[in-house]
Amino acid sequence: MTRLNWGMIGGGEGSQIGPAHRLGAQADGNFVLAAGALDHDAEKGRAYAQSLGVAADRAYGDWREMLAGETAREDRVDLVTVATPNSTHFEITKAFLEAGFNVLCEKPMTMTVEQGEEIVKVAAKTGKICAVNYCYSAYPMVREMRQIVRTGQVGKIRLIVTNFSHGHHGDATDADNPRVRWRYDPAMAGVSGQFADCGIHALHMASFIAGDQVRTLSADFASTIGSRTLEDDAMVNFRLEGGTVGRLWTSSVAIGRQHGFDIQVFGETGGMRWASEQPNQVYYTPVGGRTQIMEKGEDGLSDEASRLSRVAIAHPEGFPLAVANIYVDLAASIRGEVRDGLPLASDGLRSMAAVHQAVASAKADGAWVDARPPMFRD
Amino acid sequence: MTRLNWGMIGGGEGSQIGPAHRLGAQADGNFVLAAGALDHDAEKGRAYAQSLGVAADRAYGDWREMLAGETAREDRVDLVTVATPNSTHFEITKAFLEAGFNVLCEKPMTMTVEQGEEIVKVAAKTGKICAVNYCYSAYPMVREMRQIVRTGQVGKIRLIVTNFSHGHHGDATDADNPRVRWRYDPAMAGVSGQFADCGIHALHMASFIAGDQVRTLSADFASTIGSRTLEDDAMVNFRLEGGTVGRLWTSSVAIGRQHGFDIQVFGETGGMRWASEQPNQVYYTPVGGRTQIMEKGEDGLSDEASRLSRVAIAHPEGFPLAVANIYVDLAASIRGEVRDGLPLASDGLRSMAAVHQAVASAKADGAWVDARPPMFRD
Amino acid sequence: MTRLNWGMIGGGEGSQIGPAHRLGAQADGNFVLAAGALDHDAEKGRAYAQSLGVAADRAYGDWREMLAGETAREDRVDLVTVATPNSTHFEITKAFLEAGFNVLCEKPMTMTVEQGEEIVKVAAKTGKICAVNYCYSAYPMVREMRQIVRTGQVGKIRLIVTNFSHGHHGDATDADNPRVRWRYDPAMAGVSGQFADCGIHALHMASFIAGDQVRTLSADFASTIGSRTLEDDAMVNFRLEGGTVGRLWTSSVAIGRQHGFDIQVFGETGGMRWASEQPNQVYYTPVGGRTQIMEKGEDGLSDEASRLSRVAIAHPEGFPLAVANIYVDLAASIRGEVRDGLPLASDGLRSMAAVHQAVASAKADGAWVDARPPMFRD
Amino acid sequence: MTRLNWGMIGGGEGSQIGPAHRLGAQADGNFVLAAGALDHDAEKGRAYAQSLGVAADRAYGDWREMLAGETAREDRVDLVTVATPNSTHFEITKAFLEAGFNVLCEKPMTMTVEQGEEIVKVAAKTGKICAVNYCYSAYPMVREMRQIVRTGQVGKIRLIVTNFSHGHHGDATDADNPRVRWRYDPAMAGVSGQFADCGIHALHMASFIAGDQVRTLSADFASTIGSRTLEDDAMVNFRLEGGTVGRLWTSSVAIGRQHGFDIQVFGETGGMRWASEQPNQVYYTPVGGRTQIMEKGEDGLSDEASRLSRVAIAHPEGFPLAVANIYVDLAASIRGEVRDGLPLASDGLRSMAAVHQAVASAKADGAWVDARPPMFRD
Repeated sequence: MTRLNWGMIGGGEGSQIGPAHRLGAQADGNFVLAAGALDHDAEKGRAYAQSLGVAADRAYGDWREMLAGETAREDRVDLVTVATPNSTHFEITKAFLEAGFNVLCEKPMTMTVEQGEEIVKVAAKTGKICAVNYCYSAYPMVREMRQIVRTGQVGKIRLIVTNFSHGHHGDATDADNPRVRWRYDPAMAGVSGQFADCGIHALHMASFIAGDQVRTLSADFASTIGSRTLEDDAMVNFRLEGGTVGRLWTSSVAIGRQHGFDIQVFGETGGMRWASEQPNQVYYTPVGGRTQIMEKGEDGLSDEASRLSRVAIAHPEGFPLAVANIYVDLAASIRGEVRDGLPLASDGLRSMAAVHQAVASAKADGAWVDARPPMFRD
Repeated sequence: MTRLNWGMIGGGEGSQIGPAHRLGAQADGNFVLAAGALDHDAEKGRAYAQSLGVAADRAYGDWREMLAGETAREDRVDLVTVATPNSTHFEITKAFLEAGFNVLCEKPMTMTVEQGEEIVKVAAKTGKICAVNYCYSAYPMVREMRQIVRTGQVGKIRLIVTNFSHGHHGDATDADNPRVRWRYDPAMAGVSGQFADCGIHALHMASFIAGDQVRTLSADFASTIGSRTLEDDAMVNFRLEGGTVGRLWTSSVAIGRQHGFDIQVFGETGGMRWASEQPNQVYYTPVGGRTQIMEKGEDGLSDEASRLSRVAIAHPEGFPLAVANIYVDLAASIRGEVRDGLPLASDGLRSMAAVHQAVASAKADGAWVDARPPMFRD
Repeated sequence: MTRLNWGMIGGGEGSQIGPAHRLGAQADGNFVLAAGALDHDAEKGRAYAQSLGVAADRAYGDWREMLAGETAREDRVDLVTVATPNSTHFEITKAFLEAGFNVLCEKPMTMTVEQGEEIVKVAAKTGKICAVNYCYSAYPMVREMRQIVRTGQVGKIRLIVTNFSHGHHGDATDADNPRVRWRYDPAMAGVSGQFADCGIHALHMASFIAGDQVRTLSADFASTIGSRTLEDDAMVNFRLEGGTVGRLWTSSVAIGRQHGFDIQVFGETGGMRWASEQPNQVYYTPVGGRTQIMEKGEDGLSDEASRLSRVAIAHPEGFPLAVANIYVDLAASIRGEVRDGLPLASDGLRSMAAVHQAVASAKADGAWVDARPPMFRD
Repeated sequence: MTRLNWGMIGGGEGSQIGPAHRLGAQADGNFVLAAGALDHDAEKGRAYAQSLGVAADRAYGDWREMLAGETAREDRVDLVTVATPNSTHFEITKAFLEAGFNVLCEKPMTMTVEQGEEIVKVAAKTGKICAVNYCYSAYPMVREMRQIVRTGQVGKIRLIVTNFSHGHHGDATDADNPRVRWRYDPAMAGVSGQFADCGIHALHMASFIAGDQVRTLSADFASTIGSRTLEDDAMVNFRLEGGTVGRLWTSSVAIGRQHGFDIQVFGETGGMRWASEQPNQVYYTPVGGRTQIMEKGEDGLSDEASRLSRVAIAHPEGFPLAVANIYVDLAASIRGEVRDGLPLASDGLRSMAAVHQAVASAKADGAWVDARPPMFRD
């Protein structure tokens, strides 16, 4: 099986996201880094790409140069990862899709709902893959939960409760730190702070596991540190299309929570719980029975979970390999296999709509609003 | 130190709450069961009381007989516990207060806000203790959290997140079981199901630890099992008088949660977490520092926590001794010591107002409402 | 059901063990404190007993006076608890047994094996109950584990691994503190330090759950703090009569362990784990299956577990109520019911033999020795 | 920074260890798979190597061919990983070292102590790196523990307690399964079963963290399933050169333990605990203080821990990236940087000596023996 050619935009030297994508793309030998425009400083980007093994003529100074260069080649990259500042995702993703490239875009896919709808349309028109990096959904045991729901083992889902709360922005004396401050500044972060940053991972996962979409929501936002304009804490109640009740709490001032992303799914005949800090287990309880600890790698898991695990039971696999699983599914999809677990442009769009509608709801004292993008409404 | 005389109404043979109160009252040797009207069947009640060591002339057939009998005695009981069906709490509590008895009333103290205000007034007029059994607040480590807030160790409280969710009513095939059904039937349970049953413990604890009162709230109620009229799942957002943001989730269909009552308190300079299933620890994190595991019985705890613990560090103490701690504080108060941790009639009233207002909010699609009883509004 | 009369020797004002026994005896209303010789200072003992409600003529100055006084009464106490310094247990227990009293003796029952054999013989001759306070065996979920073994649900037991390790004597700068030092001084503690103090609880529990007795053992003792003569850390390998392999680690210098008493039982068809710091759960795993979390109070537990639990599932019950369960079984036994879970004199004797033989083994570089008292050898 | 050329022997299609090494070597972009003799079937090995991107002339049919081929090249591989069946490790490792290659050998490095000494001598003579894959020691938080010991933060180490116990061989009905049976058959596994398979990881880690070597040991072995010749359960007491007491339990019949590898280190001024199933935390307790939860990625960790972590705090990293960390250190060492954390041939030798001596001790009823290889004795 030959390796696929992979190109990356952004993720230059010193970034945190760059190494995660490179590890993810290369860990399983599916992709080889063949091209890149890694830095907003063209010279640094070219040099860094070459230090990573990219040929000189594919070490580009910026994304436009890369778009032109790769489009002109016979051996053009099979996949482009967009890991640039948020406000540029739309333009770059759209351009590469239109030129016929498959794209993996970092979240948020766009800044506005209109942009999101545009990407969805472009992806549909070109027939190319436009994936969005909701990487938590690629943990094997999250996939297992989805299969459990699909196969009816917990019955109809009544209720989903999910949290994504940390305390790393809880120090008011650090609030002016540029690495923290921008997230709460509308000029830089857009309409939402913590909900757009972390909450949408949780909202996506609720839909992903339930196999259903968010229809309505009601939001309560708070800026608990005075200097902030955007919310650092949010509660969002929601309803899925099928009637499932949803509750989502997200916070960045929850001091003591390191990375408190967890989800609980309660159906007619059973409940499940998963947490990102111990991602290799699911706690499953059949109604009237005892809680059982499911382990990644145990006998009898679904193919969906099994194929995304690399080492034996109780050998933990972590976040970087969840990112790698996104690339596993991308490689398979590019090679023509059917992979229905990949988060796609429609998911990116739904997130963006939910963010904007949550902001509107919060401003209207928690009024219930339609969470869907216009193009997906009835 | 002589023992105090204690009387009990309700809690007859076969009830679950009766043994818990008897253990609580007697465990530390503060009270001796001197009188009782334990059963709605007068004869059974008299016989059972005598089997527990109550003298024949103080083994009463009903509460009115007990009220008359005890009022007439010189050695009247020092405390009456009211553990009868919810709808009778008001009448009995009021009558004993007016006759000059101290009362411990099971929750809910009353069925209506008006009744609650009446009890508060009667208690104030008579100068007698009217306590309400929010027993979780008497766990040593909950008291420690309150002291940590009081002494400013975590700064101003920004955010409180609390859950009280179980799955024991999650089996739809069991929903018609009379022991389950009545909780969701307005004719028997009043205006609220799960929020009134469990949620108010969590709401009380938020106020208790914060040392502040709920001012406003917004509620989202759901009946996830079709045959139910009242809610079996609720999310309540709230604000304390001082501005603290609150989030409270309560559910009885969360299959796999046994007794998921926990509270997280996030202040300017630290966070804390406590859970009722492991009540002897608090997880405390100073801002910018590591999470520390505080243990009941460790050196340096407050007097408030230390005096309510009976055995050495890491020897767990559980729910029955939290109830016993309520009686410890009652005995001390009756003996004239100052105990400011006892939940009182005003707490019972605030809970009742919060329940009624949450119901109103939920009916109004989550509109924010004043959570306070009329007599405590500005 | 009338209350039984209970007498206590030792456990005076300020002792820790006294309140634990009083709570244990009185919590469920089975016993009333009717007599006591509570303090080595006769006057203080008499006064304290009366403050606890003991009649003046049964508030004794010492145990001999109590023995004489109670023997002379018609309404003599039904049970005597011996909670005096270790070196006096033998003499007092023997005297009361011979006078026809039921006795609950604190551990260690005796200081020598010979004394232990004497107690066993005396108890047999008189037909009175001589129980020893291995209270951990009275936790409901420990009883459940024993029933699981008895009913063959985990097959023949291959292996038991148990630890009882804490770090509360790990501070060398505190080693001369009299409350710590005596435990490692042979003049005061006898032949063994940590193994005699904590290890024998674990050894008893292994036998208790397995329903089998220790036959041989090999010990490795260490005094990790230089000033100590007796061991503060010990590893004891053992074999039960039926061939089960046993491993027991006990330490008092394991800094960070608060009360690390746990036991793992591995049979042919399943494994189980219980820990004293979270005593309301057992983790049970059928061979080839998932780990299940068993909860105190869940449906389907054995009568043995159910009758020793007081409150509903997931309401934790802790150490003081495990002590209370010893008294529950004592009351039932005194009333003529069959209770086979009570730790008896033979258990106290076996512990003493194991301690002395472990000391001998450790001195002989871990040589395997017969762990049984002479009277129980083949 | 150019990539290093890497060659692999063994780890062919369908093996579990092959992907782990390939991920480990390639995840961080340090190595590129340049040569391989991946399968005992020459043709399959050549084909598979090429499918992984190895050039046809470096896709070898067996290790001797690879040795000849690579020795003859200018661009010979910088590192050879030996992942063949255990009995061949010695011959292959020795041959490559002698030809001037750096080697990473899977454990066990050799089958006999004499072979181990030979490898140590050859590695010393050639000056090449001979590493052994004790990959657990490369977890960031294990490195942190070692730094904590080195810098004296917990004082002199008194006691180390470590377990590596699972239950995956606990099903007697599966004992004849060839994948299980060989481990307990001396003809295939050598002198030891579970201790050689898992125990030596734990023993290595004890030495690694303590910065000290095992001097003496005493072993108790058991074969709890009748059909087994070699032990499936072992307890090994040991002493380090500096006097530290050690206790190591390893089992493969501990049903319910998935991968129960943990280590507790107790020093004069603090204790620490780490477990392989939650490898991103260390529980640290200063003497007299509270237990603190240390997190991978937290501020203030040592460089040793920080440089081996790839993603932010509370984003878990698991087993495959611990293997990758071995390759990170190998790459650095090959490039001339000083890395003192790599497990080397001397570690492999010490393990082999400990295995053989534990077997001897167990046969001699637990007699204490010198655990060191002859060449490292005084």
